[in-house]
Amino acid sequence: MTLAPPSRRFEYVTDGLEIYRRSFATIREETDLSGLPADLHGVATRVVHAAGDVGVVEDLAAHPDVVRDARTALLSGAPILTDSQMLASGVTRRRLPADNEVVCTLREPEVPGLALAWGTTRAAAAVSLWADRLEGAVVAVGNAPTALFHLLELLLDGGPRPAAVVGMPVGFIGSAESKVALAEHELPGGGQVPWVVVHGRRGGSAMAAAALNAIADEDELA
Amino acid sequence: MTLAPPSRRFEYVTDGLEIYRRSFATIREETDLSGLPADLHGVATRVVHAAGDVGVVEDLAAHPDVVRDARTALLSGAPILTDSQMLASGVTRRRLPADNEVVCTLREPEVPGLALAWGTTRAAAAVSLWADRLEGAVVAVGNAPTALFHLLELLLDGGPRPAAVVGMPVGFIGSAESKVALAEHELPGGGQVPWVVVHGRRGGSAMAAAALNAIADEDELA
Repeated sequence: MTLAPPSRRFEYVTDGLEIYRRSFATIREETDLSGLPADLHGVATRVVHAAGDVGVVEDLAAHPDVVRDARTALLSGAPILTDSQMLASGVTRRRLPADNEVVCTLREPEVPGLALAWGTTRAAAAVSLWADRLEGAVVAVGNAPTALFHLLELLLDGGPRPAAVVGMPVGFIGSAESKVALAEHELPGGGQVPWVVVHGRRGGSAMAAAALNAIADEDELA
Repeated sequence: MTLAPPSRRFEYVTDGLEIYRRSFATIREETDLSGLPADLHGVATRVVHAAGDVGVVEDLAAHPDVVRDARTALLSGAPILTDSQMLASGVTRRRLPADNEVVCTLREPEVPGLALAWGTTRAAAAVSLWADRLEGAVVAVGNAPTALFHLLELLLDGGPRPAAVVGMPVGFIGSAESKVALAEHELPGGGQVPWVVVHGRRGGSAMAAAALNAIADEDELA
């Protein structure tokens, strides 16, 4: 079968790179990034792009080392650990500097049993299955507040430390609270795992993936 | 290795079903769905849930037959066609009534060549690869406005007609315009393919998947 394109009937930009360029230009015109550190501007721009809403910049907050530490970890081959398959799907593989593994353990067969035994959600139980991969990894939570709480509990128990946490669960129950807990956590012995959050109810796999994609490659149009 | 749960250190709801129940109750408290037809309330609730933002209800608009026609199509085994892998990942398979196929053609090998030859985006070219599967299908666009414009051009050329279109591309360039075009289209010979949109810049794979998940199964907590 020979495919033919349909008749062009609408006026729209059809060059993918040009769409990105104009999108990011519009975002820069409409947002004030001056309150954010320079190395977070790429994350802010991409998160706004994913949200279709410049207002999310007001809720973006981060530890000062998060972009540097997450990028360094990815360059040295660290895996990305996510709480949802959708978020894993949203990571643009060609932007990853070391063909980094992207891992979501939510569908592993032991998850339902652990969740039941521990009296928690599957998303939270799945975090425990990150196990040895957690040390030095880049973590991204874009769906379940319980996954973020569970991760913090592991950290506060003295468990393996990831290089950075993208904390952007979405929703009405526990989401805002889990992001405050991440922003305020203190590790045993002091200090924090560097983090970036969108405070409040907003968040989601698309925003979390956008943050990862910005961290993974400084080049906006790569 | 025997896994143990971490020490519970935060107060949060850990029952997945209870989280859904409270989330949907909060959404119903905070939104006014009275302006929407009854069979769209499930879609509205889930789209708000995915967005973490009750404000999206104001931008939700739909053809009166969209939920009925999309549900009927899925019951009879119609495939779901999506513009992004992330959206395909977001469809909850256990909610689908006929083990429906979920198809994203974006990564098929002919896509880059077609996009180049036709002077359009890969997302738009990928829509043409839906080909024979488009007739009677449930289409969901959650990322690329160009995919939605391309689909409309196929329809206006007299191409195969899907049963319904979830039109929720996100972004700053073309997104709002593509959704207006969907809401206002008129097929050759008259009438429309039933549609549901979130007008404006907002949208995205998560909202589009949420709309599909609500359409696929009337049971809110399934």
